[in-house]
Amino acid sequence: MRALRFDGRLRLATRVAVPRPGRGEALVRVRRAGICRTDLEIAKGYMGFRGTLGHEFVGEVVAAPTRALVGRRVAGEINCGCGRCGWCRRGEGNHCPTRTVLGIVGRDGAFADWVALPEENLHPIPKRLTDEAAAFVEPVAAAFRILDDVDVAGARDVLVLGDGKLGLLVAQVLGLVNRRLVLLGRHAEKVARARRLGIDARRGGGRRTPAPADVVVDCTGSAAGLPEALALTRPRGTLVLKSTAAHGAPLNLAPIVIHELKVVGSRCGPFAPAIAALRDGRVRVGPLVTATLPAERALEAFRAAAAPGALKVQIDFSAA
Amino acid sequence: MRALRFDGRLRLATRVAVPRPGRGEALVRVRRAGICRTDLEIAKGYMGFRGTLGHEFVGEVVAAPTRALVGRRVAGEINCGCGRCGWCRRGEGNHCPTRTVLGIVGRDGAFADWVALPEENLHPIPKRLTDEAAAFVEPVAAAFRILDDVDVAGARDVLVLGDGKLGLLVAQVLGLVNRRLVLLGRHAEKVARARRLGIDARRGGGRRTPAPADVVVDCTGSAAGLPEALALTRPRGTLVLKSTAAHGAPLNLAPIVIHELKVVGSRCGPFAPAIAALRDGRVRVGPLVTATLPAERALEAFRAAAAPGALKVQIDFSAA
Repeated sequence: MRALRFDGRLRLATRVAVPRPGRGEALVRVRRAGICRTDLEIAKGYMGFRGTLGHEFVGEVVAAPTRALVGRRVAGEINCGCGRCGWCRRGEGNHCPTRTVLGIVGRDGAFADWVALPEENLHPIPKRLTDEAAAFVEPVAAAFRILDDVDVAGARDVLVLGDGKLGLLVAQVLGLVNRRLVLLGRHAEKVARARRLGIDARRGGGRRTPAPADVVVDCTGSAAGLPEALALTRPRGTLVLKSTAAHGAPLNLAPIVIHELKVVGSRCGPFAPAIAALRDGRVRVGPLVTATLPAERALEAFRAAAAPGALKVQIDFSAA
Repeated sequence: MRALRFDGRLRLATRVAVPRPGRGEALVRVRRAGICRTDLEIAKGYMGFRGTLGHEFVGEVVAAPTRALVGRRVAGEINCGCGRCGWCRRGEGNHCPTRTVLGIVGRDGAFADWVALPEENLHPIPKRLTDEAAAFVEPVAAAFRILDDVDVAGARDVLVLGDGKLGLLVAQVLGLVNRRLVLLGRHAEKVARARRLGIDARRGGGRRTPAPADVVVDCTGSAAGLPEALALTRPRGTLVLKSTAAHGAPLNLAPIVIHELKVVGSRCGPFAPAIAALRDGRVRVGPLVTATLPAERALEAFRAAAAPGALKVQIDFSAA
């Protein structure tokens, strides 16, 4: 089969063995997959991953222990816990210390014709959701995760920093529970796109910088933005970090203590509300798709995803 | 009067005017004051403060709008809000944007024969508390602040990093509500002292590093210790930052996101439980006092407080 693999360099392999599902796992024929910033970072060596990339996908189940799943279109949660440790028994397999993570830690991902995952990770996709939208379930779920850990509804105001694809998803999801939300962007074109999605988006910088907010979500993907993010968080407020790429920059932590801030890390989230929000059109993702390329042009898709101004680039595996 | 002042360099001035209390303020004759790490940082230029240092003190009220206060021995909260803004009206004057802070921001401090503070900041000290102990009310209150913002009692385990004076106070206070608490230190002598205070103290480093805990409090006062502090926080756990001196070091924030940690800044705290705990002997501070020097040797006291191995150094202003 075809698979976009990283082994120190990125390459599209065409004669990769189809994965053999383990115990309790299903085999899924990938239809479409989205390129995430994490993929771009992994292709630079982040996480030390080797293998097939890709963790945002929709596909069709071709084999599974539960027969009713076969033939269903599904999206898949990406963390695979051991099932036995305390984390897994408490339903927090996302933090299982020996977990694998699809296309990120110890498990081949979904930029391939087939992918294997525990069937309990799979969520059937309603018919009315297109493949394009269904491939967004994973990142939309990650945006919903913020609602698990932060009282967004009760916040006086919410500020989303960053007009990239993560910012546009987070602003739509948090906007479902709090209308006093502003997205702060840097690029006129992306800010205009955010407005077309119904987001109160503004260009930041200089005098246009808004007042600090109760809840701030850093979606800039840039460690350099953190001092600004802290400065935009009101005393006793919460700054949410979503991007694992934000690392290694010098950071003055004194504002966290002086203003008694909470800095909250947030990663993968619940699929059910993400699927429902996409199904009902409460979260719209069509305008976020910059390009969709067929599998044989996966390397080109990767380059397009890394280009300035790019939002989501998808890879179409549905044509054999 | 005498006052230990910083105007780019530290000096003991002897002909400083006695402060004139503003509206609603009391004048306090300082009896004893403790040197805090923040004082050492300010004397290096931190916060850009100019004036009389000192914010941990006990003294006797010599003039106040409320006559019943006169003659009382008191400790004083250090934040002085405007009294009119939203923060002050909500009882969060600690975060009033135009506040002054005793010996730290825009207000002369307590390393002086007299100090002025709003009388609402003052808390009478029970007779059985010595001056030595009463001068610890402010930092013990800061340790109690952690209990306001973090569920310490409900944590499976608690780890206090640092065997300095802050660590010894925080470990005693958090140990009041959670006995599964370990203090991790570096110095055999300080670890032994912690044990004499009833703390389960251990020397860290190498194989002796304990397992990650639900709640970790960084009392190392060193930004360099933060990566270790993050590594010692269990997934979904909370890392509490207490030291405003931790600034400017490069920091990989990815663990915060991957392990979905909370990093919580915590500053000044409630005086009432601190006074009660000191009064009842539930928090013991005597073993923390390295030296007490008379006011005329205040500069020497400062040097002693900065010396390796020093814990709390106090300045005695009670002799004229």
